[in-house]
Amino acid sequence: MAPFHCLTFLTDYGLEDAFVAVCHAVAFQIAPELRITDITHQIPLGDIQRGAVVLAQAAPYFPPAVHVAVVDPGVGTARRAVAVQAGDSVFVGPDNGLLSIAVAAAGGAGHAISLTNRALWRDTTAATFHGRDIFMPVAARLAAGAALAAAGDPVDVASLVTLPTPDCRLTGDAAHLEVVTVDGFGNVQLSLPGADAPRAGLVPGATVTLAWAGGAVTAPFVPAFGDVGPGEPLCYLDSGDWVAIAVAGGDAARLLGLRTGTKLTLTARGGGR
Amino acid sequence: MAPFHCLTFLTDYGLEDAFVAVCHAVAFQIAPELRITDITHQIPLGDIQRGAVVLAQAAPYFPPAVHVAVVDPGVGTARRAVAVQAGDSVFVGPDNGLLSIAVAAAGGAGHAISLTNRALWRDTTAATFHGRDIFMPVAARLAAGAALAAAGDPVDVASLVTLPTPDCRLTGDAAHLEVVTVDGFGNVQLSLPGADAPRAGLVPGATVTLAWAGGAVTAPFVPAFGDVGPGEPLCYLDSGDWVAIAVAGGDAARLLGLRTGTKLTLTARGGGR
Amino acid sequence: MAPFHCLTFLTDYGLEDAFVAVCHAVAFQIAPELRITDITHQIPLGDIQRGAVVLAQAAPYFPPAVHVAVVDPGVGTARRAVAVQAGDSVFVGPDNGLLSIAVAAAGGAGHAISLTNRALWRDTTAATFHGRDIFMPVAARLAAGAALAAAGDPVDVASLVTLPTPDCRLTGDAAHLEVVTVDGFGNVQLSLPGADAPRAGLVPGATVTLAWAGGAVTAPFVPAFGDVGPGEPLCYLDSGDWVAIAVAGGDAARLLGLRTGTKLTLTARGGGR
Repeated sequence: MAPFHCLTFLTDYGLEDAFVAVCHAVAFQIAPELRITDITHQIPLGDIQRGAVVLAQAAPYFPPAVHVAVVDPGVGTARRAVAVQAGDSVFVGPDNGLLSIAVAAAGGAGHAISLTNRALWRDTTAATFHGRDIFMPVAARLAAGAALAAAGDPVDVASLVTLPTPDCRLTGDAAHLEVVTVDGFGNVQLSLPGADAPRAGLVPGATVTLAWAGGAVTAPFVPAFGDVGPGEPLCYLDSGDWVAIAVAGGDAARLLGLRTGTKLTLTARGGGR
Repeated sequence: MAPFHCLTFLTDYGLEDAFVAVCHAVAFQIAPELRITDITHQIPLGDIQRGAVVLAQAAPYFPPAVHVAVVDPGVGTARRAVAVQAGDSVFVGPDNGLLSIAVAAAGGAGHAISLTNRALWRDTTAATFHGRDIFMPVAARLAAGAALAAAGDPVDVASLVTLPTPDCRLTGDAAHLEVVTVDGFGNVQLSLPGADAPRAGLVPGATVTLAWAGGAVTAPFVPAFGDVGPGEPLCYLDSGDWVAIAVAGGDAARLLGLRTGTKLTLTARGGGR
Repeated sequence: MAPFHCLTFLTDYGLEDAFVAVCHAVAFQIAPELRITDITHQIPLGDIQRGAVVLAQAAPYFPPAVHVAVVDPGVGTARRAVAVQAGDSVFVGPDNGLLSIAVAAAGGAGHAISLTNRALWRDTTAATFHGRDIFMPVAARLAAGAALAAAGDPVDVASLVTLPTPDCRLTGDAAHLEVVTVDGFGNVQLSLPGADAPRAGLVPGATVTLAWAGGAVTAPFVPAFGDVGPGEPLCYLDSGDWVAIAVAGGDAARLLGLRTGTKLTLTARGGGR
């Protein structure tokens, strides 16, 4: 494999400890010229779904890269450690679904390897820190040109753990959706791609009503936060081109009581159809 | 314009999402050798004044650079996106006052361009993420040597939005000031430059009284936090050479009830005049 | 001294202000090719003990480096600023114990210098920001090849401030320990090295009881978090090979009421002895 010049790193390690820096140091020792970009290290502890979504949001903007992601509540147990080639990049992390959305977005898994070759690990390993001892050293060696196949045993890509696809059904009258993720500002991404928005009645000038167990909100479908007043809700296409709900200057998830997985029904009326 | 080797980045994006990393990725694709330094991404959401102050605190310490700043509650509305040359650097961001304090500190705006040339943007743009789609790609291209004039239409520098200058009037008996900013520790920077401090009676050994609607505090004027006991207030020249109020080991803004814009009257007595 | 290619940076400056970026800028001006890795900037304000532990956790994973650490409640007072050579690295910071654990772990101080040579400082200095004005510029110059001896006056290494060694006494029945540190997740590191764990009865299959003034907990001694159920306590060897207590998916320090310095008695029974 040709060397990669870019490695990205996403974890739930937080920034209060030395965990992230130690992983950088391990990579630096193996591949001093490698550029490492931190995607985020503030995934809520153990939240595989949130990690998977954020990784998938970021990965497409990078040049060919080794993407290392570690949200790994099963560290030290029997779950596999894997490297998955997809598109022109390689995704390295635990086989718990964390990589699955980004891999699918990159065109699906071409090859996958279980990271069983200890020659690519650190010399000593701890049961609680595979980021330092397995994922990062293997990834740095892959970035430096090691062959993917050298990292361990081939894995049937059909056996890789994937996260369930969020509900998205368009009927004549309504779209049946769910909350895919909530960002750091409380903006709520729904399971409706922007490309399908017009079929759900989301056209310029439309008014949207969302209803869920315990609440409902009506908001204009507008391009930008500044198109509504402070504190007012809006429905918009977010920067990843998904339909989303926000409150201008506020935390929509908290204000509305929405969270990942909440099922909603969206109806729209009016607008320039 | 000669290429810049340094690009700085300041936003209110937070560190929980992939927004910052995506902007890094966009710059990396355009200018792989460019060094990007993050100033901070924890400006309170939409707080233009705070962003402007922090940018102005940081920019003077960098070599000639392209400084990208995005605190942009009006993203997607009619506000202009601009690049402003000042001193030997270029400041890129929304024309909402965010750049104004740093530009003034760098000697004032020489030239300014409205970023209307879409050839320097990303191919596709979202109404809510101009950091990724306009500001960062234009800035990276400027850093890589593109001419400032190629970024769009010239703007009359007198038309650039500026923030109001904080109140600072010295009378015979007192200085009439306001709170310019509060840092992450709750230290309170006032609108009195260190150079003018002696005229306000701030000399070694002086005792300072600050009064405002709803409160007052008396503190010694000392060089360092360690010159007072834990929990005690002090008046000092901060690291940017502004008169400031702190509480040793505590959060002065919270303890005293001060915040950006609070008007104060400062009087001083004693000391080695 | 041969130049270093790596500089690390640890502080209690937080990430909300420009303080960290300004220090990066100062280093960049002196040594543009230098790679700077941030260990953390979220040490609790003024917590020298926590800073010392985190620095010692991170430093061993780096190649020969200049390690700059600034947790410095005495900034601007009479405490010394020092550079300490230990192993193949140099540690730069205030002489308040912050460097002491990492220096000891690197083999102890070989030489130490008080940073009195103002020619290596910034031209102007503020009493409250020695990170910017003294520690970082001196460190960057050392990294760029300046001789350690040129940084100031030699210091007797025996005079360097060290932190007290945490209590660790093994008796026939019990280990008398204390809490060394609590990480960002609330995991509690004890003063018992992994190498001594078997002598305290910590063997596979053992059950551990910890008692302290105000509480007690019993937990299995297991390799990994996934070996107990969510919300259950575990005793394990942490990634730095110290005996530690955690709660799976929870904050052990908060749940159990433990904090740095708490004295505990550990007893173990059962397991494959």
